[in-house]
Amino acid sequence: MLEMGSHHQLSRIMRPDDANIVGNVHGGTILKMIEEAGGIISTRHCNSLPGDRCVAALARVERTDFLHPMFIGEVAHVSAEITYTSRHSVEVQVNVLSENILTGAKKVTNKATLWYVPFCLQNVGKIIEVPPIEYSNPEQEEEGKKRYAAQKLDRLETKERNGDAIMPVLNPDRQTKEAYTVAFSQSSLIHLVGPSDCTLHSYVHGGVTMKLMDEVAGIVAARHCKTNIVTASVDAINFHRKIKIGCVVSVSGRMTFTSNKSMEIEVIVDADPLVDAEKGKFRAVTAFFTYISLDKEGKPLAIPPLKLENEEEHKRFEEGKARYLQNKAKRLAEKERQQ
Amino acid sequence: MLEMGSHHQLSRIMRPDDANIVGNVHGGTILKMIEEAGGIISTRHCNSLPGDRCVAALARVERTDFLHPMFIGEVAHVSAEITYTSRHSVEVQVNVLSENILTGAKKVTNKATLWYVPFCLQNVGKIIEVPPIEYSNPEQEEEGKKRYAAQKLDRLETKERNGDAIMPVLNPDRQTKEAYTVAFSQSSLIHLVGPSDCTLHSYVHGGVTMKLMDEVAGIVAARHCKTNIVTASVDAINFHRKIKIGCVVSVSGRMTFTSNKSMEIEVIVDADPLVDAEKGKFRAVTAFFTYISLDKEGKPLAIPPLKLENEEEHKRFEEGKARYLQNKAKRLAEKERQQ
Amino acid sequence: MLEMGSHHQLSRIMRPDDANIVGNVHGGTILKMIEEAGGIISTRHCNSLPGDRCVAALARVERTDFLHPMFIGEVAHVSAEITYTSRHSVEVQVNVLSENILTGAKKVTNKATLWYVPFCLQNVGKIIEVPPIEYSNPEQEEEGKKRYAAQKLDRLETKERNGDAIMPVLNPDRQTKEAYTVAFSQSSLIHLVGPSDCTLHSYVHGGVTMKLMDEVAGIVAARHCKTNIVTASVDAINFHRKIKIGCVVSVSGRMTFTSNKSMEIEVIVDADPLVDAEKGKFRAVTAFFTYISLDKEGKPLAIPPLKLENEEEHKRFEEGKARYLQNKAKRLAEKERQQ
Repeated sequence: MLEMGSHHQLSRIMRPDDANIVGNVHGGTILKMIEEAGGIISTRHCNSLPGDRCVAALARVERTDFLHPMFIGEVAHVSAEITYTSRHSVEVQVNVLSENILTGAKKVTNKATLWYVPFCLQNVGKIIEVPPIEYSNPEQEEEGKKRYAAQKLDRLETKERNGDAIMPVLNPDRQTKEAYTVAFSQSSLIHLVGPSDCTLHSYVHGGVTMKLMDEVAGIVAARHCKTNIVTASVDAINFHRKIKIGCVVSVSGRMTFTSNKSMEIEVIVDADPLVDAEKGKFRAVTAFFTYISLDKEGKPLAIPPLKLENEEEHKRFEEGKARYLQNKAKRLAEKERQQ
Repeated sequence: MLEMGSHHQLSRIMRPDDANIVGNVHGGTILKMIEEAGGIISTRHCNSLPGDRCVAALARVERTDFLHPMFIGEVAHVSAEITYTSRHSVEVQVNVLSENILTGAKKVTNKATLWYVPFCLQNVGKIIEVPPIEYSNPEQEEEGKKRYAAQKLDRLETKERNGDAIMPVLNPDRQTKEAYTVAFSQSSLIHLVGPSDCTLHSYVHGGVTMKLMDEVAGIVAARHCKTNIVTASVDAINFHRKIKIGCVVSVSGRMTFTSNKSMEIEVIVDADPLVDAEKGKFRAVTAFFTYISLDKEGKPLAIPPLKLENEEEHKRFEEGKARYLQNKAKRLAEKERQQ
Repeated sequence: MLEMGSHHQLSRIMRPDDANIVGNVHGGTILKMIEEAGGIISTRHCNSLPGDRCVAALARVERTDFLHPMFIGEVAHVSAEITYTSRHSVEVQVNVLSENILTGAKKVTNKATLWYVPFCLQNVGKIIEVPPIEYSNPEQEEEGKKRYAAQKLDRLETKERNGDAIMPVLNPDRQTKEAYTVAFSQSSLIHLVGPSDCTLHSYVHGGVTMKLMDEVAGIVAARHCKTNIVTASVDAINFHRKIKIGCVVSVSGRMTFTSNKSMEIEVIVDADPLVDAEKGKFRAVTAFFTYISLDKEGKPLAIPPLKLENEEEHKRFEEGKARYLQNKAKRLAEKERQQ
């Protein structure tokens, strides 16, 4: 009954702590489950041949949409499948379904694509060769190759962008700030990485980091519009460096763009190995989260426009607008293709 | 890919918090997963026809063996199947498999049988009729009927055994004590120190100890006045000795003093390094917590006076009163200075 | 952004599990956050110069008042600052602010003062020298010196008071009991049922109760044989009455029987609806757990025989023996049938 090949399934009932006070499950909870399923299936696959043992580390999550809200008491079904392998990386596609066990209603809430890289356990830093999978037809392999090339390019570009200038400081005093400005809603949290955040080999699970990012983005969004807010999508996230147990992680968020019905929040994760003096603080991850605001019936509300106060904020707003329009165009194109 | 009928599967990677210090997963962790899978599949089944909605409550677990130990880092696969239905109950059989994703080794660790009864949500106390399942052959149904009859008999017998004479209780029996005495509200808990309670170097965070202390103090306060109680202050706490992972911590609280609107509770923390035989049990921390009682609007309520039963309690009450008056005087002095 | 010198800030949204059923955040939750912020800032400070690495351990918390209640859904902001350093200790002042992100209302809920001592990681027991901080004026340093002297005196006094006579313990004192008796290993815990222990309809999951039962049984077994112990089996468990949110559950365990290689522990669960005055305390569940003891290679060890002290214990031992022999016979019969 257990399918243990290239599929993996995980399901869990949603509890009060997985959700906000209105009962909507946090996007971060879902991202964490997606990554757990992806981590299990790719680690299992990369250890399927004899040789060095390895653990698959999350390298990238493609843009992910949250198609329907999920609620406390529903069962989340997360199923993962390996869809492409290159020499040193694994592509996993994950579907999330919500099931109301009282009414029987089921909804697809997410589709996500994750990339993993297998790190050797015996020889730290060494990357293992990935056993190839079998494709049902040559087109499948061809399309995977294209996706692989596209994500590789994007990872390189982000790496360069992050490298050249560590972004300026977030946390000035919010209290004196005007409502609807960037400074008013910007937020940050810190978290000391403990054992249950980590894999057996003391590196933070990618899903744990994404959950913290979603928490900060949610606080920024709620401060801006003071309503029930939910995650609508997350842009591609690249994980450049692994974070180890004992680090203090600081996660900061600021609003970059608002459209009529959505807000974009930039989230930055820095890691600080407190005790380990050799390594300094480093930028671990950055990403853009999009949130919407819901009324009591679950219908989208208008978003108060973001007040921009300086040139840099204007620049970031324009960049956010470009991403917004690009995603809109993509969604439209997809819809047409499906019809 | 999701089988949503009479099967249900759940899998989860085992974390440090699921296991003891040697890495063996706690039996309790496995029992909890087994019951989660059973609860989901039986609630889903009992809501599969139109009519009143219900939730399946666990009525009985048959004898369960733990065939092989499970370890941190392994993936637990829990699969549940409905194997018999009577008019008002559901039998679920659950198998647990451990998978080492590095070596690929798999082992059956548990086989369990659980019985659920569906309770109506609209009409509390009412039991719903269970939709019958289809059996692949008449023998299957016959054997289920026998298991049903056997468990029903055993449940009745235990009920009678429990009914006629409440067994002598282990701890100092609160039930025979008079209300508002020290003995009536005194409480204690034990906690096995796990990885997420600790720093990177395996010593308990001071904050974890304080949280347990407040939990016990809160239960003492609630037992005394049976209302919504909140922490008002904590006296200075000194941490004389550090507590290590794997210790059993016992935290005990007793009421020492009541004023009109507040209660003082003394909390004592003892640590017992179970396995580490060289060191004995030691007193780790003691402190005084002050609680107040609130009505529905959040206004302080009068506290029932503490009934003192012996000289020692009188002495502790007087000491508590002295601390109370001293703190009151300090607060007044501070107020005056600020004006 | 985060000032990483002598300031540190942490913020987190308050969840259902952080609070009681009325929504008031537990004092213990706040104390835990205060200590986390204090521990991070002082560990970072003490590692700011080259030399031995260390971790700052909490030595003392000054008297702390809870000025305003905090509620689920509010964001707690905890900010910590180093305000004094002596040669071997660090004083940290922590402020806690609650923010209602929907209304924007903010309130100071706590001010706390903590003292930390830096312990060397390479050389256990050695205390590191603390890098001095700079004071903005000489008065500041002078006042810090006075606070340091005052707390040192108080610490010494408590140590002496605790030293000369271990205070009478609340619970039936295990320490005066002979090893290997029932009274020596018997244990009990209390647990306040919170939201994540419950179904959507506020009844405790059967799995949560079983996990607590296994935890107590494990502590009884470890106290008896002081080795690595694991659950071998659980006898049939009947759940007669459902336990509701807000109840205090007390779980007690005592050893009933030992064979050469196994121990049987009886576990009793009582539920007490604290606030709900109409219903009294009731017996919710009872069960028998069997544990075995393992050596470092995972092989079963001999169990020290249980010392029986009265007639009742002899009676329970005989009943346990009967269950043991019955289960052994069943296992043998099953084996034969399978061959």
